[in-house]
Amino acid sequence: MSKRPEMFLPEQWPSYYSKSKGVNVWDLDGNKYTDMSIFGVGACILGFCDEDVDTAVISAVKNGNMTTLNPPEEVELAELLCEIHPWAKRVRYARSGGEILAIAIRIARAATGKNRVAFCGYHGWSDWYISSNLSEDANLDGHLLPGLKPLGIPRELTNTAIPFNYNKIKELISIVDTYNDIGVIIMEPVRNYGPEDDFLKKVRDIADKIGAVLIFDEVTSGWRINEGGIHLTMGVEPDMAAYAKGMSNGYPMAALIGRSGLMEVAQDTFISSTYWTDRIGPTAALATIRKFRKCNAGDYLNRLGKILQCGIRKMAERHLIKLEIIGIPPLTHMSFQYGEMNSKLKTLFIQEMLERNYIASLSVYLSYSHNEVVLEEYFNALDDVFGILADSIENDTLDKKIKGPLAHSSFKRLT
Amino acid sequence: MSKRPEMFLPEQWPSYYSKSKGVNVWDLDGNKYTDMSIFGVGACILGFCDEDVDTAVISAVKNGNMTTLNPPEEVELAELLCEIHPWAKRVRYARSGGEILAIAIRIARAATGKNRVAFCGYHGWSDWYISSNLSEDANLDGHLLPGLKPLGIPRELTNTAIPFNYNKIKELISIVDTYNDIGVIIMEPVRNYGPEDDFLKKVRDIADKIGAVLIFDEVTSGWRINEGGIHLTMGVEPDMAAYAKGMSNGYPMAALIGRSGLMEVAQDTFISSTYWTDRIGPTAALATIRKFRKCNAGDYLNRLGKILQCGIRKMAERHLIKLEIIGIPPLTHMSFQYGEMNSKLKTLFIQEMLERNYIASLSVYLSYSHNEVVLEEYFNALDDVFGILADSIENDTLDKKIKGPLAHSSFKRLT
Repeated sequence: MSKRPEMFLPEQWPSYYSKSKGVNVWDLDGNKYTDMSIFGVGACILGFCDEDVDTAVISAVKNGNMTTLNPPEEVELAELLCEIHPWAKRVRYARSGGEILAIAIRIARAATGKNRVAFCGYHGWSDWYISSNLSEDANLDGHLLPGLKPLGIPRELTNTAIPFNYNKIKELISIVDTYNDIGVIIMEPVRNYGPEDDFLKKVRDIADKIGAVLIFDEVTSGWRINEGGIHLTMGVEPDMAAYAKGMSNGYPMAALIGRSGLMEVAQDTFISSTYWTDRIGPTAALATIRKFRKCNAGDYLNRLGKILQCGIRKMAERHLIKLEIIGIPPLTHMSFQYGEMNSKLKTLFIQEMLERNYIASLSVYLSYSHNEVVLEEYFNALDDVFGILADSIENDTLDKKIKGPLAHSSFKRLT
Repeated sequence: MSKRPEMFLPEQWPSYYSKSKGVNVWDLDGNKYTDMSIFGVGACILGFCDEDVDTAVISAVKNGNMTTLNPPEEVELAELLCEIHPWAKRVRYARSGGEILAIAIRIARAATGKNRVAFCGYHGWSDWYISSNLSEDANLDGHLLPGLKPLGIPRELTNTAIPFNYNKIKELISIVDTYNDIGVIIMEPVRNYGPEDDFLKKVRDIADKIGAVLIFDEVTSGWRINEGGIHLTMGVEPDMAAYAKGMSNGYPMAALIGRSGLMEVAQDTFISSTYWTDRIGPTAALATIRKFRKCNAGDYLNRLGKILQCGIRKMAERHLIKLEIIGIPPLTHMSFQYGEMNSKLKTLFIQEMLERNYIASLSVYLSYSHNEVVLEEYFNALDDVFGILADSIENDTLDKKIKGPLAHSSFKRLT
């Protein structure tokens, strides 16, 4: 979904790549671009083709990615994850974010015997989540995509997953007042903004009071501004936390960490898949996490993200572009503030940036390979392109300047 | 689940590996074993560390496994899959068998608007499947694991998935007579035996008559005795077919192929995951399928599997061991015929084979790296070990000879 050319620049987007390195990617014709967009949908936290991670992966390939026995890296990674998150004592693996979240929900439901879920944020494509749109098409509007139809989801699941909005504790209180069988509360610990008024602490208290399992979905927020889950910076511990994108620099991997006692319930249900035992996944994760730690990449990304947001703001102000900038610094999101004109502005922005050899979008995910020189050049390109946008707005020439169909609207998700 | 030491030889199984090559695997202490067991749960069809596949994978790693753009190998693989299966016109990818089956069910339900599923066989761990045990714990007995508890599955899904047994067309007829809203029929096209009395053709006719989508789950049966799905050898076409294990020699990959018109329905629901676009998956699949074709591996595996079954039978007869041998030849399964004594015999068998440096189990999955010399040596080991078993039965010394806890019972699945 996120990588479709229609999400960026229909008919003009390069779509496929031949190679990549650092912050650069080459298309099939050998054109070189700098990625100032979603950067592998946030999966490549160290940058494309990181040498340390790739060396470890190639060694895993050479020694065998899959046998009847298990790769010892699974154990090493579990120990490292529990060291980073002292509240967690058990670990399970999968190979995608949607999968690991479905596992988390299964375990939480099995542990509490209560199936109803209260959720906040984007949690993948599985039935348990998309079912929330069965009662009302608008339920996922603020969490995923507006007007998403729950086609192919059994109608029986209506009302099994109930949304609440971030920082709106009263909505969660109202849910637990309405339903006495909420067994699971799952949420992204941050969205485009952090908790206010002790929001996470209050959610934790509600979970404890009703005996629900609290799951933090850190698929997007983990390994951004700190090592491990962003909840470690917020003083609230969940019962389980799910990781995927940030942890393995673009190699399929996902992990669920959780409290002892709770996680063992998984043995009483059936959760199993052959590919969850491949060697590349844990090997890439170990190498990524160790390098992230060694380089203090969290601080670096946070600092660079602030420079990014500051530079974008400066350029927008210079050209009097009305632009909202949100998101935690390494996951910055811009949105034009021109009502119905927004999708045209987005399209022209991406088109003009592409002509300047940028893979750009309104979301900018940073990696450890980005640096101040890359940002300086990006700001120069923004200077040009915001100038063109301002001119098009002033002279009503947007339509004339746009060379192809408009970009589609994207996820309503963290950044 | 399948790789747990308890499934083989609790407390004595090596559990973890350091390296592998061909049919061999080395444990963490450097002991070398020959794998005559489930061989990476059937995922390594060409053998461990196949040079052609691994060279392609390493090249994918070096050029970048993940970027914001897509790997062109996705397109090449889609074309190859549709060439192999001329009835299929569209392809989707995931990275595990359970995931791709959940996608297939979502699309089929979305296309028909009817949510109830009739199924036959093992189809993964997802809610839609395990829910079938909500109405009766015994529903999955012949398909997955006996007595499996559906813990953590919403009770609302009771009766949304109804099982029928292979070659029992009357059971399927009874299901469609009972429920007028069966939208999906999903099945393994073979299990431990093939179709009798036009079974697949009759299932196809029923699907057409009631307007249900017919899905063949080829995760286990694909790329065993022929290139692509085993259904290609049986003259019956499904509407969708799902692949995983056989197709990419141990690198996480899964594909759903389907008819045009049907597959496009996926656009109207939400099915998306970042890691489904990694480059290793399609690269490994392309290399695996091309080598499988070039070597005519299907014929080879079928022929070698027959030699395997014949040799096992001969050794069992020599020692008067009552042993049933079932399964398509490259996925052979043996079961002792001694009632309550079976699990002890299985345990002693695995123990004694391990002492002879075999990773052995009652299931034997062959790869293109197995050959007649490997089988000859295996038969010699069987000669010894079946002799020990026969002696233990005759002299009632089974308990004395078993050095640790008993092996757990395993999947009731294909082979």
